Amino acid sequence: MAGNSFGKLFTLTTYGESHGPALGGVIDGCPSGIELDLDAIQQELDRRKPGQSSIVTQRKEPDVVQFHSGIFEGKTTGTSIGFVIENTNQKSHDYTHIKDSYRPSHADYVYDQKYGFRDYRGGGRSSARETACRVVAGAVAKQMLKGMEFYAYVSGVGALKLDKTYNELDLTQIESNIVRCPDAAMAATMETYIKEVRGKGDTVGGVVTCVIKNVPVGLGEPVFDKLHAELGKAMLSINAVKGFEYGSGFEGCTMLGSEHNDAFNTDGTTKTNNSGGVQGGISNGMDIYFNVAFKPVATLIQEYETIDKEGKVVVMHGKGRHDPCVVPRAVPIVEAMAALVLADFFLRNKMYN
Amino acid sequence: MAGNSFGKLFTLTTYGESHGPALGGVIDGCPSGIELDLDAIQQELDRRKPGQSSIVTQRKEPDVVQFHSGIFEGKTTGTSIGFVIENTNQKSHDYTHIKDSYRPSHADYVYDQKYGFRDYRGGGRSSARETACRVVAGAVAKQMLKGMEFYAYVSGVGALKLDKTYNELDLTQIESNIVRCPDAAMAATMETYIKEVRGKGDTVGGVVTCVIKNVPVGLGEPVFDKLHAELGKAMLSINAVKGFEYGSGFEGCTMLGSEHNDAFNTDGTTKTNNSGGVQGGISNGMDIYFNVAFKPVATLIQEYETIDKEGKVVVMHGKGRHDPCVVPRAVPIVEAMAALVLADFFLRNKMYN
Amino acid sequence: MAGNSFGKLFTLTTYGESHGPALGGVIDGCPSGIELDLDAIQQELDRRKPGQSSIVTQRKEPDVVQFHSGIFEGKTTGTSIGFVIENTNQKSHDYTHIKDSYRPSHADYVYDQKYGFRDYRGGGRSSARETACRVVAGAVAKQMLKGMEFYAYVSGVGALKLDKTYNELDLTQIESNIVRCPDAAMAATMETYIKEVRGKGDTVGGVVTCVIKNVPVGLGEPVFDKLHAELGKAMLSINAVKGFEYGSGFEGCTMLGSEHNDAFNTDGTTKTNNSGGVQGGISNGMDIYFNVAFKPVATLIQEYETIDKEGKVVVMHGKGRHDPCVVPRAVPIVEAMAALVLADFFLRNKMYN
Amino acid sequence: MAGNSFGKLFTLTTYGESHGPALGGVIDGCPSGIELDLDAIQQELDRRKPGQSSIVTQRKEPDVVQFHSGIFEGKTTGTSIGFVIENTNQKSHDYTHIKDSYRPSHADYVYDQKYGFRDYRGGGRSSARETACRVVAGAVAKQMLKGMEFYAYVSGVGALKLDKTYNELDLTQIESNIVRCPDAAMAATMETYIKEVRGKGDTVGGVVTCVIKNVPVGLGEPVFDKLHAELGKAMLSINAVKGFEYGSGFEGCTMLGSEHNDAFNTDGTTKTNNSGGVQGGISNGMDIYFNVAFKPVATLIQEYETIDKEGKVVVMHGKGRHDPCVVPRAVPIVEAMAALVLADFFLRNKMYN
Repeated sequence: MAGNSFGKLFTLTTYGESHGPALGGVIDGCPSGIELDLDAIQQELDRRKPGQSSIVTQRKEPDVVQFHSGIFEGKTTGTSIGFVIENTNQKSHDYTHIKDSYRPSHADYVYDQKYGFRDYRGGGRSSARETACRVVAGAVAKQMLKGMEFYAYVSGVGALKLDKTYNELDLTQIESNIVRCPDAAMAATMETYIKEVRGKGDTVGGVVTCVIKNVPVGLGEPVFDKLHAELGKAMLSINAVKGFEYGSGFEGCTMLGSEHNDAFNTDGTTKTNNSGGVQGGISNGMDIYFNVAFKPVATLIQEYETIDKEGKVVVMHGKGRHDPCVVPRAVPIVEAMAALVLADFFLRNKMYN
Repeated sequence: MAGNSFGKLFTLTTYGESHGPALGGVIDGCPSGIELDLDAIQQELDRRKPGQSSIVTQRKEPDVVQFHSGIFEGKTTGTSIGFVIENTNQKSHDYTHIKDSYRPSHADYVYDQKYGFRDYRGGGRSSARETACRVVAGAVAKQMLKGMEFYAYVSGVGALKLDKTYNELDLTQIESNIVRCPDAAMAATMETYIKEVRGKGDTVGGVVTCVIKNVPVGLGEPVFDKLHAELGKAMLSINAVKGFEYGSGFEGCTMLGSEHNDAFNTDGTTKTNNSGGVQGGISNGMDIYFNVAFKPVATLIQEYETIDKEGKVVVMHGKGRHDPCVVPRAVPIVEAMAALVLADFFLRNKMYN
Repeated sequence: MAGNSFGKLFTLTTYGESHGPALGGVIDGCPSGIELDLDAIQQELDRRKPGQSSIVTQRKEPDVVQFHSGIFEGKTTGTSIGFVIENTNQKSHDYTHIKDSYRPSHADYVYDQKYGFRDYRGGGRSSARETACRVVAGAVAKQMLKGMEFYAYVSGVGALKLDKTYNELDLTQIESNIVRCPDAAMAATMETYIKEVRGKGDTVGGVVTCVIKNVPVGLGEPVFDKLHAELGKAMLSINAVKGFEYGSGFEGCTMLGSEHNDAFNTDGTTKTNNSGGVQGGISNGMDIYFNVAFKPVATLIQEYETIDKEGKVVVMHGKGRHDPCVVPRAVPIVEAMAALVLADFFLRNKMYN
Repeated sequence: MAGNSFGKLFTLTTYGESHGPALGGVIDGCPSGIELDLDAIQQELDRRKPGQSSIVTQRKEPDVVQFHSGIFEGKTTGTSIGFVIENTNQKSHDYTHIKDSYRPSHADYVYDQKYGFRDYRGGGRSSARETACRVVAGAVAKQMLKGMEFYAYVSGVGALKLDKTYNELDLTQIESNIVRCPDAAMAATMETYIKEVRGKGDTVGGVVTCVIKNVPVGLGEPVFDKLHAELGKAMLSINAVKGFEYGSGFEGCTMLGSEHNDAFNTDGTTKTNNSGGVQGGISNGMDIYFNVAFKPVATLIQEYETIDKEGKVVVMHGKGRHDPCVVPRAVPIVEAMAALVLADFFLRNKMYN
């Protein structure tokens, strides 16, 4: 109820602060007998980890996941899967500058107001470091959902927007560059721009597009737990996300019904896919696709004025090793959350059969 | 788990098909001692009801809510509140045309695939008629949340977009016209356009903007149940919604961090509000505002080809009395869902105090 | 969260006060395609209703259930099933005597303390009248669980205890007498005793034993949601229940392990069944059996002293038409709750297959 | 949904197998600002640990809890509290004898049936070793519930039954002997008996009584989540528990209403307490007390016949270091589960104020 669990049947509960001894989580509801490729899970985590390329934060965290339970002889046992990621980068930082002050557009102020005090080290629980646990669980979910394919990629950085739809892109090329944009030319432009922004101590936002293929018909629960509603919640729960749209999205609302409706082929597939693979909240077997908007990272390597706990104006200077643009590292997180949503609905749909 | 409940502490569970004997629901978790203005609840329902103006469906449904429990001597008792809305418009329609065929971009096909068969009368459970129950519960939630103010309005119809922010509008004027757009000139333009679209038997999408004022600091639960994530889910669960953005939204992701950050005033308020009243998933006391994109209604009063259950091509002709544009009637639904989300977080926040 | 829902996948949410306009509920999670025998549901309700025999309360309530949704062409649709039971016996009683006073061993005092005030008419929400909704939902659950058999019966009234195990009884005889004890001689003795107690304006407690046959192996979820733990909660949630034991129960704790262990037959069944059909919280395919202890009804038709809201001593005299012994009418309630528990675990177990 | 979480607002999710690398859990919903005495938590764990006395299993497990999150500067932060207990006693046992065979009255058979295979090492997830995590969380809950007092003690071992009520005992003497029976004479008799039973390689059951003092009025949620119903579920979820009764319990059902009703004092307390501190499912401020029946441990140090996976009869011989009687070590587990239930209702009750 305090918001640290996600999913109803395939459930992830997480814990951990940015600079505490460890992060971890419990995956509950994973069926038994699934052969887990632990290396593949670690690889997903590596896609998210700091220091992986020249355009992300240069912090060093190995982010190695250890599993404590729920796996026996290489297979899931049907019992809860506990895992831990130790924080190895816990050197005694100097937090004096943020201990008593509130960074703009961070959670410092609201945490203090809500809880009376806060673990200010590195943002505590509000740090996006927490998403490492999501990636672990999402990687388990992906392995449960054999056959479904999850492709997230960067489609926008600041004003730079990929003007091709996912169908016009080679989705196998996502990992071919450090931006994780499958269009090589745009990726290069984005990389240059991110570096330019970083050079000014500034940050920039972006968009991640996600495509899910081979989703069976029937996933999603009317009326409140529509498939796209849970996908939306999942994405909006990721740090820095400001918007979500699926299928035709915001653009679709400018269209006429006669343009927007997806006519059927005789096999139940549709000629167009403005629906984004979801009709009435239930998957219709077509590709699911959606966009996720990320705001610019709030931590600037610049000097600025803000207030302290007493409401006095103070001058702060952002320091440390931060991402100038969050979307390249957000790609595996978006995929992970999508996989968690699909895993949950996959199990929920078993009730009906 | 089958998706008919919303909220964790302030919970709404609903039932009812478009053409069944009645719709209804149970509100659980409403604290005791709240004086309920039942007329105000009915008024909210009247804002949603069919036939209220010349630009909405001309179906006649009085939509009168009856309360069965949980209220005694004018006040909530703290026990569950059961209510029923009878369907009075249940005349024996002829459903032959939709019984065995699948309307494009409706839920007919996926319901059949998921459940094996469906109540095809008027769309059954997939009909937006279900949202009447949401409006009832949202109206109760509003009364619990004394002091908070909910203003939803139409900010877009097709390509027509209100280019004023909510701060530039007089939100008391929302109900002054049948479009529910607080800008009289734009409202008139929109009305004309909707009628034009209807004249062709077509439909058009739109955008509803919602503003919530006087939200106390501290509502929202990190990490998965962020305030805006639950708002997003709530909105996306409304029929025909394709997208959600809050604060700076999709536009915000094109900005630099130095432009986007909201600097603090000394009282903890912020000079700008790109955050949309939410930081780190928790309300910061500033106005919450967000946009909700609605696709064009799928039912056209036109002839079109589609498929039947056997996958054969059939010609259908949309008939009946449908909304040419859903947003005017969606306004009270958006407010209701926002109130349900806030009510839930209001109670959840009590855990900490 | 306010306690008006039961079950996680097969969920019942109820509402209604003893003397309000109606009781009702929503069953969510019932799979689609189940042919419902509505008469059989009404019959279960008739087994619980007041006035059915000379040893139960003589109040007249027809208790007719009306279904509002979730059923189409005789079958469940997979959407939520709403139902209502109108209160026809709502004549304007005189509640002056209980309005401001607290009846001993009733919920009057704690409701006032918890909620600030209470619906005092007939006990409001704390009345066992609420269990009518459980019986409706339990009857639906039974029909979903084709093949499982539920036999509850009265095994104790006051000091009168049936000394035969369920294996020594003819369970088809439960409905052959008004006590619902399948041993005719004991039933007669119990009936006489209940009438004697009633003659003094007193009440007496009793025990209901329940047997569930043909439960498949594998139902129940370790570690917190053990099958018998949920059965225990279900039974203890029925008004007036003071204890629950399954299999060897309290007697079993006096035994040695060498006496108590259930040796296996080669087909996985066991030679004895001290386990009561549950091992490690999971059904093992043997008969499930358990006992439920009911306290004597608190309402006496006698004069007694108690206190009013101001803490002053007042003299009250119980009146009205009350059950001298609750167990004959509790039999269908016990069965209903058992069916709800099994239905929930039946669906939950589908996750693993 | 797979049963590894307990509680709705104050939630514990656990993981871990008997012989895996570690056990652990996540406590979610604990309010911020609670000063945690970590030594007191470890002490509770020490009361449960193996090898603590001559009448419990002689296995050696230090059972040291490490906290990973949710605590900062000695106080809870309001975020999720992750903790781990490493298994240090993981030497490579020889499991050949249980790998392919089913021990009577253990969970081996049902786990294989439910999940397709099982972690057979030391019982895997079905081992009572899992309860260590409950004790940790219960100890946190106790510290949140300042003022409430939890006293569990052994009141029965086999046929030996303490014939004093809790009011006649000095509850500060529970820890004065290794049986955890506050009556010294009975404790000595029980100890002798347990050793005698162990000498034969046999085991014996027992009863734990629990008393909770200083519970405020108003905890518990009608109708399904009655306080005693959740207590019952909590207790029945502990390994080896066969029955639960509170207040007058099974004995109460033999009484007349005129004997059983608890007359009020003018301050709202009652002259007797057959209600066991709970009326209508809600605490009334009187002492809560209940009994929990534990069956004899199923593992005998004797030779016996059982079946293997193929259904063939095999001869097994129990070995290892097992508890001859589980109740002395069950005492802190009962207290922990009681504290978890009360913590949950304590938070739930905040909704109403």
